[in-house]
Order: sequence, then structure tokens, then C-alpha cells
Amino acid sequence: MGSTWGKNIKLSLFGESHGVGIGITIDGLPAGVKLDLDLIKFEMQRRATGKNELTTARKETDTFEILSGYFNGFTTGSPLSILIRNRDQQSKDYSKIKDIARPAHADYTGYKKYDGYNDYRGGGHFSGRLTAPIVFAGAVAKQILRDRKIYIGTHIKSIKDLEDRDFCEKDLNAENFKRLSEKQLPFLDESLEDLSRKKILAAKNKQDSLGGVIECSIIGMEPGIGDPFFNSIESKLSGLMYSIPGVKGVEFGAGFKITDLFGSEANDDIYIDNDKVKTKTNNNGGILGGITNGMPINFRVAIKPTPSISRSQETIDMKNNTEIEFKIIGRHDPCIVPRALVVVEAMAAIGVLDFLVVS
Amino acid sequence: MGSTWGKNIKLSLFGESHGVGIGITIDGLPAGVKLDLDLIKFEMQRRATGKNELTTARKETDTFEILSGYFNGFTTGSPLSILIRNRDQQSKDYSKIKDIARPAHADYTGYKKYDGYNDYRGGGHFSGRLTAPIVFAGAVAKQILRDRKIYIGTHIKSIKDLEDRDFCEKDLNAENFKRLSEKQLPFLDESLEDLSRKKILAAKNKQDSLGGVIECSIIGMEPGIGDPFFNSIESKLSGLMYSIPGVKGVEFGAGFKITDLFGSEANDDIYIDNDKVKTKTNNNGGILGGITNGMPINFRVAIKPTPSISRSQETIDMKNNTEIEFKIIGRHDPCIVPRALVVVEAMAAIGVLDFLVVS
Amino acid sequence: MGSTWGKNIKLSLFGESHGVGIGITIDGLPAGVKLDLDLIKFEMQRRATGKNELTTARKETDTFEILSGYFNGFTTGSPLSILIRNRDQQSKDYSKIKDIARPAHADYTGYKKYDGYNDYRGGGHFSGRLTAPIVFAGAVAKQILRDRKIYIGTHIKSIKDLEDRDFCEKDLNAENFKRLSEKQLPFLDESLEDLSRKKILAAKNKQDSLGGVIECSIIGMEPGIGDPFFNSIESKLSGLMYSIPGVKGVEFGAGFKITDLFGSEANDDIYIDNDKVKTKTNNNGGILGGITNGMPINFRVAIKPTPSISRSQETIDMKNNTEIEFKIIGRHDPCIVPRALVVVEAMAAIGVLDFLVVS
Amino acid sequence: MGSTWGKNIKLSLFGESHGVGIGITIDGLPAGVKLDLDLIKFEMQRRATGKNELTTARKETDTFEILSGYFNGFTTGSPLSILIRNRDQQSKDYSKIKDIARPAHADYTGYKKYDGYNDYRGGGHFSGRLTAPIVFAGAVAKQILRDRKIYIGTHIKSIKDLEDRDFCEKDLNAENFKRLSEKQLPFLDESLEDLSRKKILAAKNKQDSLGGVIECSIIGMEPGIGDPFFNSIESKLSGLMYSIPGVKGVEFGAGFKITDLFGSEANDDIYIDNDKVKTKTNNNGGILGGITNGMPINFRVAIKPTPSISRSQETIDMKNNTEIEFKIIGRHDPCIVPRALVVVEAMAAIGVLDFLVVS
Repeated sequence: MGSTWGKNIKLSLFGESHGVGIGITIDGLPAGVKLDLDLIKFEMQRRATGKNELTTARKETDTFEILSGYFNGFTTGSPLSILIRNRDQQSKDYSKIKDIARPAHADYTGYKKYDGYNDYRGGGHFSGRLTAPIVFAGAVAKQILRDRKIYIGTHIKSIKDLEDRDFCEKDLNAENFKRLSEKQLPFLDESLEDLSRKKILAAKNKQDSLGGVIECSIIGMEPGIGDPFFNSIESKLSGLMYSIPGVKGVEFGAGFKITDLFGSEANDDIYIDNDKVKTKTNNNGGILGGITNGMPINFRVAIKPTPSISRSQETIDMKNNTEIEFKIIGRHDPCIVPRALVVVEAMAAIGVLDFLVVS
Repeated sequence: MGSTWGKNIKLSLFGESHGVGIGITIDGLPAGVKLDLDLIKFEMQRRATGKNELTTARKETDTFEILSGYFNGFTTGSPLSILIRNRDQQSKDYSKIKDIARPAHADYTGYKKYDGYNDYRGGGHFSGRLTAPIVFAGAVAKQILRDRKIYIGTHIKSIKDLEDRDFCEKDLNAENFKRLSEKQLPFLDESLEDLSRKKILAAKNKQDSLGGVIECSIIGMEPGIGDPFFNSIESKLSGLMYSIPGVKGVEFGAGFKITDLFGSEANDDIYIDNDKVKTKTNNNGGILGGITNGMPINFRVAIKPTPSISRSQETIDMKNNTEIEFKIIGRHDPCIVPRALVVVEAMAAIGVLDFLVVS
Repeated sequence: MGSTWGKNIKLSLFGESHGVGIGITIDGLPAGVKLDLDLIKFEMQRRATGKNELTTARKETDTFEILSGYFNGFTTGSPLSILIRNRDQQSKDYSKIKDIARPAHADYTGYKKYDGYNDYRGGGHFSGRLTAPIVFAGAVAKQILRDRKIYIGTHIKSIKDLEDRDFCEKDLNAENFKRLSEKQLPFLDESLEDLSRKKILAAKNKQDSLGGVIECSIIGMEPGIGDPFFNSIESKLSGLMYSIPGVKGVEFGAGFKITDLFGSEANDDIYIDNDKVKTKTNNNGGILGGITNGMPINFRVAIKPTPSISRSQETIDMKNNTEIEFKIIGRHDPCIVPRALVVVEAMAAIGVLDFLVVS
Repeated sequence: MGSTWGKNIKLSLFGESHGVGIGITIDGLPAGVKLDLDLIKFEMQRRATGKNELTTARKETDTFEILSGYFNGFTTGSPLSILIRNRDQQSKDYSKIKDIARPAHADYTGYKKYDGYNDYRGGGHFSGRLTAPIVFAGAVAKQILRDRKIYIGTHIKSIKDLEDRDFCEKDLNAENFKRLSEKQLPFLDESLEDLSRKKILAAKNKQDSLGGVIECSIIGMEPGIGDPFFNSIESKLSGLMYSIPGVKGVEFGAGFKITDLFGSEANDDIYIDNDKVKTKTNNNGGILGGITNGMPINFRVAIKPTPSISRSQETIDMKNNTEIEFKIIGRHDPCIVPRALVVVEAMAAIGVLDFLVVS
């Protein structure tokens, strides 16, 4: 169990990479939300595969069918459920490699947890493909947040050692977030777009893969949202971020770098700007004591290099308990970061919405 | 609401820094656990104040009274509840500064959330003092884990720019964890002890404060524990770590540095060592797909510099909505990292136990 | 929000009576359960409509498609999700009566809760049709329980004033439960079958409807399962029973009648029968302090007369806020009790399983 | 685990009958509620023992100490925690009878669940004494509800075969609820007071005990509160009622008697009374589809005869697994119904509040 989440907004995720399909049920949405299906499709397209040479060749249109909770163009307040049928799965060959634990994948851990009964094809329920329904849920959440003037944006902070600057105040507005969302490789420093594309393709050519860091900002949150301790904004958001396959680090505000500062440098001085309470710096990422202070909620998420690489790797046959060497044959992304941006935004939207709605 | 946590092990934390006291109720513990009160006291002593020049002068013995769930030396299976009465609080002067939002504290956010009704004295429920009952809960959890040969250890990875090496295999055993737990400044490189003490005292003399990074390792976990997505080991542990006041970053395995690696470097090759499945590296920190793989669970936690500093700071009076300059008078730690080690271990123990017990 | 349930077994129910379809996602099932699809279909058939003159003429085969969590004949441990597409809905006429609050239906309450955005066709998400996916979940739960020698049976305790005897010891075995489950009108006193059929048809002819009481027994539970207070067996089971549309009463053991007894009569004396601890009577319905004592768990559920009747009724137009008189045109059951038996069993199976599995 | 409850209002109950004390932590209360300590004490006095010949002679003043969450006369929004120390426990003799399973008590079930480690003295955590902190929580909840013009009242519907009339419209107002709450034996038909007192004393003289039924009404709830299915008003309230020791039946509206009616009789016709939507009858107890319709929420709770009686009873010695005969020596209530009224109201208040607050 672990595919269910939430206090007010309840998610129930289902599906496998090579089964009938994948989907999600979202319980607790307000009634009367007019769904902007174009926005949802746009968001899902941001995550979709087969678009270009940077992504896996598996072509999934991720066409969703709304099964419930939607009537005459509006949410009904009942669970909103969608199904995305799998189309371009090529699962015939999986039986050959079903006992091989691909390094850095969940093959071995899933095998142990489920006594070998898990659907091993393409990672099964562990597949990054399961983030498609999450993007759907996030797109719905974003629409509700947009009506409350809350916006979420991301950029690529780094691809391997190629590093972008941090978000600064002028970047943080709805228009810029929209602009970034339309790019394939959204760096603030646009010169990095081409460099990063080349870097990713170079890795691909070497049958290797790259990771990177995504920076996310949530703007428009009133102060006073969140809770101390276990239901802090950071606790909820980090829990969601670590639900994204491949995430290995999550930090808020200055994050790990705050430890390089003296307290006198790290403390964000408070002032009043036109009746609005603000801080001069935002080393705490908009959160103090687990609760929003009205500044942008800033955080960064580290995404590991795609574990699927075509090089020869050392691992084991789980059934025979023998060491083997093998190569992953198949289609995979050389770098998942560009497609993960919208997933990070979706999780952020879901997490924030759970604090704001009542159900 | 946010002081309640858990699925199998349920925590309910209560209290304020300058009120009657603080405490916790732990529901879901197995019956028949013989409590080692000396170990509990030892753990609480690791977090206690007033021990030396590195910690606040507020002297709290943190003597706990067990209120329930304990009978004839064993847990009963009913909720285990404790109360720690506050003793050395000096709250008479708080009314003067009650409307001042101390920078990097939860004063402003709490004021907004609770409409000014929160107990402002010494941070109230937001105080780091609330981690004392968590250490109690962690000490109980540790005993149960110890019986299952699961051990948890920490060392100081860094204090500001003073950096220790990472845990390596030879460090990861119960004896060494015990040895580290007995030190005031547990670095693996012991030469850093004295350097760090001087560094902290130097900051203190300059009326400033320092932060740092704690590395934690959990050993002895069987493979197959945890869940994909929302209930992943990382989700649960990071949620708990971000419940510790002052935490701004949490990373697992190689963490943010994994993004510097190629996939071929990051992937942990799998091999068999005496019938036990292991990985050659542990960049994934013992977790794949949210589930343990049997390797040590390694993670790092960034702790910000103590926000309480005696220097003059710019902030606001929340009631009058005016900008002011002020100095925090009072007793505070120049660096909270040494006292936070046992809190990190406690949260880790609680998180892991929640996966292992049934209730 | 309210269509999500569970601690270990998590249910997420979705769908509307006249929308695309209905379904459920079950998270937390053990891996490796071989699904007996014939049993599942048999159970769903017990609830299905259009079988005879006692049920609504709406013909729904309730054919389910398994979307996930099922591979090579076994559960995978990942969420098991099904979709039942609606087929024989006749929703064209609903727009005419969409503002009319049918008495004893959830039309008015849903209208208020969802601000008029709920799908009003055929009761929408409130429809008894939503119990079909619950029967699916219950059938899966029953299989897992069966492997642990736990069995669940029901009979009709009463239809209006036609009253059957209570379950007694000789009735409580797997064979008899199976036999009862195969009957359309399972009374212990078989002479009531024909009488009740006539009674139901007489009500139908008078454009009226009937309710009744269902008695359920769960056998094979070990002593020591359950919790005191909020997670008692009674709390969990009654919460589930009251999730069934139309339920107005739930009682355990002697139920309300226990208040007619003296303590000396009500107390169930304890004895030992072949090393097994038993009680001479079972006025407490197999539960003491919220925990099983090893005796059968007995309870009764009161089901109100079907609110849909073709007679003229007084009510309001919700939009115009005017009083009106109207007749429900459409297909409905004159008595829902016979179809509700398997729903009660399903909820019981789900509730009990949630105590027994770990996830 | 089972002593923790709630979605918005989280309760954590602790303590044993003969241990240090009992208490509760309430997380999620709004900040700024001025606590009426006199009302709380009045409510606790309604449940208290030793007042007269109808209750146990154990004298517990149930003096509570507020440990947290309360500052300058108002709730702070942080967890409100109280401790009630035990005073008049007489536990010296419990060791003699510790292995005897008192019939209809949780001795055997607790012994099995907790492997004999539970505190057996006076029922330990299973004791009805644990309802004292629940009454505290209920009294706080009632104050918050009172400010929203929501009131809760109870009367004794029956003591054994002595039966009062049902609540009718004229009974349902705050003044009358207050008047009833001040009586020791609150029947609507006041002639039953003396009769019931005699009946209870007669049972006491025969070393026997009585049970009864409590009727409860919640007035002032707006329509549209609650959820379909698993989080229905009935599900939540029945779950709470079944958390009260000794409850064996819970029914809403006409309850089990609704099955005696035709649909045409059971359906509550809807009309408009001064712009307010009402129903002519209230057989559905103010709830349709799990959601309030604005009518009073009416329900009845069956309380079994006190299991502690001084007569000789047949049972077993759990350690030696032998049958024995024994008499309970000690102090106990001949009928718990009068003291349970306020507990039922408390649970109702908590349950309703959980739907109304956001946290």
C-alpha cells in the first residue's frame, strides 16, 4: 500500500506500465470547477514521450478518459477518475529478462516485497509512466489554485554540471511560469538550452544517462497556511516529491547551502512593503515553523540519472540467485529531467491544494 | 493540526516551551516491550540543555513521568504517554516582546495561523523543546528495533564549512553507533571535534550562530520494506525529518551529488556476498522504488543556523505593523547540530518502526 | 470526500449511476492471491438487477474489466482496480426532474453539498449502483479470508413484519453460508420464502416498497483481533454498514434487546470446550472491548424501504423553492433487502480483512 | 492501536483505570476559543461517580489539569491536552483476580490481544473511566458548536422495559436540552424518574444490573454536511458511539422500526416552512445519503447492563485454562445509562465538529 494519499484531496493511483492502463481517482475536489481540458492536455503533453530525440521512442499519447466526477463541463464533487489506456507497450520480450534485477531500478525491491508476483513488465507499477495520472491530477489542482491567484513554476536548475542561476524575484510571476512551461529545456539562462541538449545527446550516444536538479516556486500563498511538525508544508511537499521515481534530494529555500551561512546571514530580515509583510532574503523558502510566511515557497528536487542505460551492467538473476552481466535493450530517456518538471509542479499543486480545500 | 502522526505507530505531541510542560502519547506500540529506562534517559540526555558552553544555559533536566501504557516494567500495548514538566522557564519578560516577529522563527507565521492566540513565550508549541518527547518516542522505538538487529547512527557531516567524511562500510555497526552517540561532537574524523568546538564558540562570541549537516544511517533493514509512491521510505522519513524545527534539506544516498554522475556511475551494481544480495556502491541510499534493498539506509539532513542570535536584527511589530530593530535577549544554542543528532535518530527510528509493526 | 476508506486495505470508489461507469481501486491487498473470478462473478450476480420480478427492470450485467493489479492470474500487490461500464441507463429524461428532490433520496442533500453540480441522473454517485464495485472488493476479501478459514454468511432476518429466527450455532458453517448465498430469498425458515415473495410483489402492485433486516455472521476469527475505542470491531464494521445506502440501524450480538436483560442474563458465561475458550451465550456478538473473543461476530442491519415508489409524493422543486407533487417514473426494486445481503457480506469481509492484513 | 481518532479534530486518548491517570490530547481545535471551564466541569460532573446510590462508590473527582494548548483563557490552536490523576483506586487486590476473565468484560480479549501484558487492574485501558477525558473533549466541542447554534441533547429512552416516549419537536431546543442535562434521570415523561430509580435499586439489591437506551438529538446543523459512503454522518457517529464501552446498538431516525413501514410511510415528505426546507416526518433522522438535510439528527444507542455484578458467575482462569466460579467484589454501577448520557453527547459533539472545522 502506498498508492493512496491525502487528507482533504485523496489520490488513488493505479496501473502498470504494460498492463491495461494507468489512472487515478481524486476524491475531495470542490464541486463546480470548470475543467480546462486544453490546459490538462497541455500539461500532459509536457510529460509525454516520443516527442523528440531527448525522450524515449515509446509513443504514448496519454489520452485520458474521464470515468466519473465530471458532468456538463464541471466537477461534481464526487471522485474524479480517469483511465489512460496503454498503447505502445512492447511487452513480448519481458519474459526473458523478468528475473534480472536492473541496477538502480525497483526490480529487486519489488520482487522481495511482492514475492515475485509483481508485474515486472517495464517496471510495472513502479514505472515512471505512473506519473502521467499525477500530472492530470496536478493540472486540475493548478486550475483551482489559479483561481486563487496561486501559481507554480519550475526551471531546470542543472543538468549534470551545467548549472542555471536560481529563481529571483523578477522570474516569479504567472506569465514567466507559463513561458517556461512551453519550453522543452526551460533554463533561466537561455544559453544553456542548446548546451544541455548537446550534453544529453552526447550521453545518449555513449549509451549513458544524466540527472539534474529542478527548482520549483509556488507564489501567491497567503501567510499562515500549514502546520507545525508532522504536517508542515515541507513535510507534505517533500513526501510528495519523494513519491516521484528517481528523486534523491529535496531542499527548501537555501537548502543545504544554508549551513554555509552564519545565523546573521541566514535569518531573513522582515520588513513591510505596502502593507504586505515580506522578508529581504528568502533563505527559509517561504516557510517558518512549517507554515507559510507569504513569500514564495522555493524548493529544489534532485533527479538521478535515468537508471535504464544500454551499457553492460553487473547484476543478479533473482530467481537463480546468480551474478550476471546484461544490457538493457529498449527505449528510454537519456535524461528524465525535462519531462519531470511538470511532475514536480503537479505534486506541488496537489500538496498545496490539500492545505487549502476542505472536504 | 499537525502534531499527530502515523499509520501503525501513532504519535500525538503536545506542550509549549513555557507552559505546564510537554509530552507525547504513542499509540500502537507492541505489548511486552521491556523498557530500558536507562537507555531512554541516556538518549534524552544527548538532547538536553545546559550541559556545557555549546548549549543554551536554560537548564532542563527533562525528567519524564510515564502516565500510561507501562506496567510492571513492560509496555502494555495501550498508549504510552509521558509528561515532562517545564522547570527553568523564564517567561516573565515575554510579554514585552510578544508582538515582535523574530526573524527566521515561527512568530509571524504562528501569529497569522492562530490569529494571535498562540502561546508566544519561547516559541510556544513551535519550540525546539518539543523534540524532547520525540527523543523519548525514538528511544522506545530504538529498543524495539534493536531486538530486530536494526541500528541507527549519526555523525556530524559538517558544521558550516568544516566537513567530515561520509559514513563508509566500516563505520556502520552497532558498536560504532554507540561510540558516536556518547560523544558531544561526533565526527568520524576526530580532529574535527576540537576545531568545531572552537568554531562554534567563536560564533557565539560574535553573537552569531552556525548550522550544519547530519548524516544518518539505518542498518539491518531487510529488503522489501516500504511502498512505491506516497508511502515510500523516503517520503515517510523526509516527512519526519522536515518535522524537526530548523531542517531545510533532506537527501538520500548520494543525494544532490547523484546529479553530477553519469547513469553508468550512479547505478549501484548488484552482486551476491555469501548469499546476501548487495550493491557495490550505495548511491541510492538503500532504497529503490521507495522500498529497502537491504543496504544501509543513508541520508543527510541540513540544519539551519540557530535563528536566535543576540545581534540587532530588522523586523516588525506584528500588532502595530511597524518596522523595528531589536535584539533577542535570552539563552540559546550557538549551534543546534550536536543536540539535533539524537532527534534525527529518533525520527528515523519512529519512521522505520511504523513500517515494521502491525497494530 | 467520503469515497475513500481504510487503514491497511484502502478503497477508492468512483462513478455515477448514469455516467461512463463505476469502479473501485483496492490498495493494500497481499500479492499472490489467485483470484477466483467465478466466485467474484457469482457474488456480483447476487447483487445484479433484472433477474426477476423482485428487482428493478434495469438490466446491468455488471461486467467488470480489471484495469490493474492482476497479472498471470494473481494479485500483484499493486492497486487492484476495476471498471464496470454502465450499459442500460436511460438518462434522457432526467433533465425534466433534475430539480425535484425525491423524498428519502439524497437529491436535496447532494444539491446542497455540491451546489447543484452533482450528477443528478439516477442518484449519481449516491446510487445504490455504487455497491457493485464494493461487492467486487468484498468477493476478493472473502477469498483471502476463506484461505484463513474465516467465513461470512447472511440471511434475511425480516421483511417488514415477516420475521425469521436468529442464526444459531448449527447454521454457522461454510456449507450453510454457501447454501444461503445461492438462494434468492434466504430465510432460515424456508416457509418464509414464498410468503415474503408474495409480500414484496403485493407492495410492488400497490406502487409501494418494503424494508427489512439482514443478519450477518462472521465465523473463524481468532480471539484478540480489534482495538479498544475508536478502532473497535464494532466501530469499523458499523462505519462500513452505514456506508451502504438505505441502512438505518446496526446492532451487534443481542443488540437493542440486550437492554431487556438483567446483567446476570446478558453476561455471556465463559467455558472451555476442547481447549477452546467459548461463551455459553453470545449476547456480545463475539466482541468485548472492541476485540474478538473467538465467538461468531453477529450483527444485524436495518434496511429502509426503497425510497423510489411510483405513488404521488409531496416534495419541492429545489431550484424554484416551491412545493410540488410528483410521481417517480422509472424502474426500481420494491424491496432492496435480497440484493443487499451480498453487500453486507462484502463490507463485513472488507472490514475484517483490514484488521488482518499488513501493508 | 485504536485510541487515536479523527480527520480534522484528532483525539489521542491515554490512561488506565488504576494507573497514574487518564487523559486526552485534542489536536486541530480552532485557536481563540474561550473555554468555559464551568461548563466543562458541569459536564464532567454529569459523568462522575460517587454522587449517589445509583453510581459506584469509587469517588473520583475527575479534576483535570490542562497541560497545553490553553493560554490566557483561550485555546491556542496547538494541541489541548489534559491529565486527570487517579485518586481513589483500590488496586491492591487485583493481583488475586488478575487471571480471571470477568464475563462480558474485555479481560479475555485484552489478554489475548496483548499477550497478558495489559494492565488488568480495574479493566485498565478498557475501563469506562476512560470516558472522562472524552467528556472533556466533548464539552470543548459543545462550546464551539454552541457558538454556531448547534445543540446536542439526550434523554433516557428506556431502562430495561421502562420506556420513555421519543423526542418530538417541542423537546428539541437548547433550553430543554439544558434542563434535561441537569437531571439525574432525564426522562421526558417525568413520572419515570422515580420508577426507574426504584428499578435500578431493586436490581442493585439483587446484585444484578440493568441496561437501557439513550436517545440523542443534534439540532442546528445546516443541510449539506457529511459525505456519501464511508464518511457519512452515520458512519462517523456510529463509529464513535461504538467506541463507548458497553454499546451494542446504534440506530438513526426510525432505526430498526423503519423496516415495519411501507416506503410510502417511511419516506419523509418535503415541504417549505418559511423559506426553510423541512420534512414532515423524520424517519431518516436528519440524514440522507450520509449528508444532513437540516432536520434534527436523531439516533439511539443501546447500552448493555453493567457487566460487573456481585453474583457468582462461571468463567475461566486464563493462565491455567481452567473453569472457575467467582464473584466480582468491588464497587460498580448497577446501571451505567445515567452516566453514559453525557458521553453519548460528547461523542456526538466531537463527531459533528470534525465535519465542521478545518485544520
